This record gives sequence, structure tokens and C-alpha cells, in this order.
Amino acid sequence: MTFQIAVIPGDGVGQELYAESKKIIAKLIEKYNLNINLIEVEAGDIALSKYGEALPKQTLNVIDKADMILKGPVGESAMDVVVKLRQMYDMYANIRPAKSLPNVQSRYSNVDLLIVRENTEDLYKGFEFLASNGVAIAIKVITEYASRRIVNVALNYALMRRRKVTCVHKANVMRVTDGLFASVCREVLKGRVNFEEMYVDAAAANLVRDPTRFDVIVTTNVYGDILSDEASQIAGSLGLAPSANIGDKKSMFEPVHGAAFDIAGKGIVNPTAFLLSISMMFNRMYELSNDQKYMLASRSLENSIIEVYKKGDKLTPDVGGNAKLKDMIDDIYNHIV
Amino acid sequence: MTFQIAVIPGDGVGQELYAESKKIIAKLIEKYNLNINLIEVEAGDIALSKYGEALPKQTLNVIDKADMILKGPVGESAMDVVVKLRQMYDMYANIRPAKSLPNVQSRYSNVDLLIVRENTEDLYKGFEFLASNGVAIAIKVITEYASRRIVNVALNYALMRRRKVTCVHKANVMRVTDGLFASVCREVLKGRVNFEEMYVDAAAANLVRDPTRFDVIVTTNVYGDILSDEASQIAGSLGLAPSANIGDKKSMFEPVHGAAFDIAGKGIVNPTAFLLSISMMFNRMYELSNDQKYMLASRSLENSIIEVYKKGDKLTPDVGGNAKLKDMIDDIYNHIV
Ligand SMILES: CC(C)[C@H](C(=O)O)[C@@H](O)C(=O)O
Ligand SMILES: CC(C)[C@H](C(=O)O)[C@@H](O)C(=O)O
Repeated sequence: MTFQIAVIPGDGVGQELYAESKKIIAKLIEKYNLNINLIEVEAGDIALSKYGEALPKQTLNVIDKADMILKGPVGESAMDVVVKLRQMYDMYANIRPAKSLPNVQSRYSNVDLLIVRENTEDLYKGFEFLASNGVAIAIKVITEYASRRIVNVALNYALMRRRKVTCVHKANVMRVTDGLFASVCREVLKGRVNFEEMYVDAAAANLVRDPTRFDVIVTTNVYGDILSDEASQIAGSLGLAPSANIGDKKSMFEPVHGAAFDIAGKGIVNPTAFLLSISMMFNRMYELSNDQKYMLASRSLENSIIEVYKKGDKLTPDVGGNAKLKDMIDDIYNHIV
Repeated sequence: MTFQIAVIPGDGVGQELYAESKKIIAKLIEKYNLNINLIEVEAGDIALSKYGEALPKQTLNVIDKADMILKGPVGESAMDVVVKLRQMYDMYANIRPAKSLPNVQSRYSNVDLLIVRENTEDLYKGFEFLASNGVAIAIKVITEYASRRIVNVALNYALMRRRKVTCVHKANVMRVTDGLFASVCREVLKGRVNFEEMYVDAAAANLVRDPTRFDVIVTTNVYGDILSDEASQIAGSLGLAPSANIGDKKSMFEPVHGAAFDIAGKGIVNPTAFLLSISMMFNRMYELSNDQKYMLASRSLENSIIEVYKKGDKLTPDVGGNAKLKDMIDDIYNHIV
């Protein structure tokens, strides 16, 4: 089997990120004999201005047949691309690791946690309307079905990690919706892992107080959005955080950061988040195929990135270096074995 | 006029906090000739187990006639006390300062920001139901009316501070509800203060990255709940954060921290958050009466607390000292001039 990958380079720094990353992908494909076919498609602000749609029909046609999507950052139209794709293809598990990297100045060290964010429901359903002039309503939806499958994802990760899951909710206030999510967490996780519950406000504070107390955090869509940005900044920088949107049929890999228009075209964007997302993509291929070579490619890429941070002389300005995107890419490329 | 204050000592550490703080309140009343009448009432877990209601009728009778409520921490029944009172008496502005204190070990310094949280609507309305088995629904309500009045509160604070307001929302996803809030922010604040908008996930990250970039943050109820806990931990500790719930007719002052049952009765709870809440209460009396003595009492209390932190030898264990609650109270008492 060959994995079909639809690639959305995206807006702002997205174009240069993908252009420069190609050689790394090519080296890994060759070295590990990976069966991957990449097809570039357009989506985002540029597509919107060109075709009047952020997610044009011809792009959806390709995505429809693809196994996975590799997505760069998208600008103002991000919602219409990313949230739409997540829901359209039921990519229900948003996996967001927050992990310290060597030589990245940070107030925190040894952060290594994983946020498992439900990715299809909550207020992200987009059910909103004006009930009357000046009175806006949105509907938050929490189902047992979606809660159960995301909690099972968290369980699986925890069993491969430090076996601790923190279920984050606000069931003291949202007794029915968050109460449902919390009760599913208890049912699935209690007795199987080191299980704790935490209100979302306390979780936001505890991430600041001591992020190393967390292993896996499982939570609903809105809280996951907020806490994952907070956690990735605590681990070093939002600019370094990768993510995976996993569904049973399709999945999408994307950096957490945005299009960064202010530095676009300057060749100084940090490729870490994008490349770590590619590493997560290879790992998903391993899960689906059970073929070790994908896992080895995933690890090789991740390790090469970590080595470049350890060495520390080819880092981009955002992490205190003075290398260009191209220099950092070359250094990572050379570390791949 | 005499200000009638209903005091809810609350659960856990609440009893000892109020018992020990009384002498400080008494000294300030005497010294500044304040016209204050304190009436103790029961609410919270203890009330629930005694009367079957967390907020018994006799308590509500007193609160009804009071100008203000001074509330200690409440246990598991917090929602039924605090959210109910906020809505019942339309205390629409939740004011939450996050400010560094001397000699408090923290990864951050010079934090001085103010979160102005809308306190009556959003998902806190409590409109929730099971639409079907396993399908839970909650209604998020955002009105122009409530948005406008909270944004005006933020504006007034900003004009007394560094004249910067960050409006936090997620209008890229919740276009109708958060979109309404954002548009009111623009209308009221643009041109009057240094105004910026920030998505809530970015705000959670930016608080970690550089909290000193913020002056006043204005936001809706749920985001305000999460960000204020995060911010107070960044300023030093959740355990030190005071808050005010301001309405046109009534207001309530309370520490952000909870009942801390684990240390209740041990006489080691830190009184800072409770006392700073009392300082905010005096300041509200000044706003209502325009009588300077209340402002002086408010400042005297706040300054005495800061002096005790500067001196640093009478701090409770949570902030690295080995003093008892009583010692710290005495030290603050002695500093009041
Ligand atoms: C761009 C935005 C719609 C998106 C979200 O809120 O999910 C982003 O913040 C993310 O976390 O991937
Ligand atoms: C106790 C709880 C209901 C409350 C809230 O969510 O508002 C608390 O967290 C707070 O922030 O005052």
C-alpha cells in the first residue's frame, strides 16, 4: 500500500516551510523505503482570494481520496479550513504533545505532557444564531459517544507513557455537559491508570505551577484549545508545537502555530513544529500499517531535530539563534540516519 | 450611611480566616472611623448539611438587605453559593487583579494585570439539558447589553491604570456569540485606550510568555474563569489572589482560592487573598460614598500586607515561610497605620 498525502502548504510562512522541508521528506522516503505519495493542494487565504473559497472543490477532491493531510499554517481563513476538515472527516482526536527541547530558553524544564483534545464537538459544532437583536446564542454539544472514543484514545497513550490521565472539565458548573464527559472519564479510566479529575481553571493554574505533574490530559474541544496553547508555551514556545488530528479513516498533521505573516518570505521561520508534525504523520502510518519502517522514520526525524537543538548552533532567531530556515533544515537533514 | 456587610466565613479554612481577620477589620474601622456593620451568615457545605441548602433562606434574607457580601472560600457547593449570588444580584463585573508580591518565589516578576470577567452570562447561565440519551446540550448566551457594561468597566479601570485593554475572545470560531462581544469591545474601546484583540488560546500562551505585556484583560465568563486562575498563578500563587464581584446594587468580595480542606484547622492558611479582598471591599465603599476614608483604609490594608511580604519573616508555609496564620495576621495588624 502507498499512503496518499494531500499537502496544504498554506499561507504566510507555510510556503517556504514546505518548500524547504521537501528534501528532508525525500531523504526519509529514500532511506526507509517509505511508500508515500505527496500531492500538493491549495487551501487557505490564498485559495480564498483566488477561488472565492478557502477550501476549493478541487482541493477537497484530492483530500477525499487521500489517506492523510499534511497542513502548513493557514491565515485568517484557518477556521474554514481546519475546523471544517476536522469535522468533515471526523478526525476526532487532536493530539498535542508539549515537550521541552534542549537549548530552548524557558522558565520550565523537563516538560513532557500530552494533551488529548476532543476535536469534533463542544462549541466547535458551529451551532450559533442571534435569538434577537443583541442576543447571541451558541450551542455546546457533548455526547457520550464522542467522549468515550476520545477517552479511549487518551487511555491508549497513557498506557504507552507514564500511565497517568488527568481529565479536565468544569462539571461543577456545567453539570449536564461536562458532567457527562467526566462520568465517561471515570468509567473508562478509573482503575486502569493513575486517574485524576481537575477543573479547567485549576488545570490552567497547575500547568503554570508545575507542568511536570501531568502526563496525559484529556479534555473537551474548547478547553483543549486553550490549554494546549498554554502548555506548548510552557514547554518552550507555541512556535515549536506539532499536532495530529486523528480519525479512523483520515488524519491531518499540522503545526499549532499560525501563518506568521510578519516573518513570511524572510527565510527565518523555525521548521520544528512542521517537521515534528511530519514525524507524527510517519508514526500514524506505522500504527495503520504495522510496518516498522514508518516508526523508524518517525523516530529518526524527531531525533535529528533534538540533535540539532543539542548542538545548538543552527537554530533560528525565535529560539535565540541566528541561523536561517535553510541552515536549520540542512543541519536536520545531515543528522538523519 | 452605614454599610451593611453580610459575612459568609465559608468552609474549610474559611472559619479560621475570618476569625483571625476580625481584629484587622476592627482596627481599620476604628482607625478610619468607617461606618460598617458586619453580620455573619451561613452558606456553603456546612449550611447544606445543616439545612439542606447551601444558601439557606435566613442567609438570603440578610444578604437581601446588605450592601455587600464578604465571602470566604466555600467547598463543594461553591457553584450553588457563588454563581447563584452573582446572578441573583446581577453582580456583573468580576474583577481579578494578578500582581506580584515581594519575596514570593515565582518564575515571573513585575506582574501587574487586571482581568475583568463578565460574571452573569455565557455558559454560566446554567441552561443545560439532555437532548437524548448520551447527548448533552448547554446554551452559551452573549448579549450586547452585558458585553457593553463589562467593557465599560474595563475601560474605567484602564483609564486609571496603564490605558491598555486586551479584549479576549474566540470570534474566529464563535462568530456570532464571541463576534458580538468583540464588536462591542471595538466600538467602546477603540480610540479611547491602547486596544488589542486576542484569541483566548493565544492569550493563554501570551500570559506564559510575557505577562507584563498585559494591563487590563476584558473577557467573557468562561475564558475569564480560566485565564484568571492562570494569571494569578503566574503572579505568584492562586492562594494569594483576591476578587470582587461588582453590581450596581450589591457586590461580593472573595478570595479566588478554595476551601483547602487539607490544611483546614491547622492555623497555617495564608490570609493574603482574603485580606486583599477586604481591601477591595473598602475601595468599593469609597466608590459608592466618595468618602476618602474608605480609600485610605483600603490602601492601608494593602500596604500593610505588602510590607509584611517585604519584611518576609512572618509568611505562611505556602509562600516559603514558617509562620502561622496568627503570626502573619499579627504582623499585618501591627503595620496598619
Ligand atoms: C485556527 C483555530 C480555528 C484552531 C482552533 O481553535 O481549533 C486553532 O487555534 C487550533 O487550535 O488548531
Ligand atoms: C467555584 C466556581 C463555580 C467558580 C467559577 O467557576 O466561577 C470559581 O472557579 C471562580 O472562579 O470564582
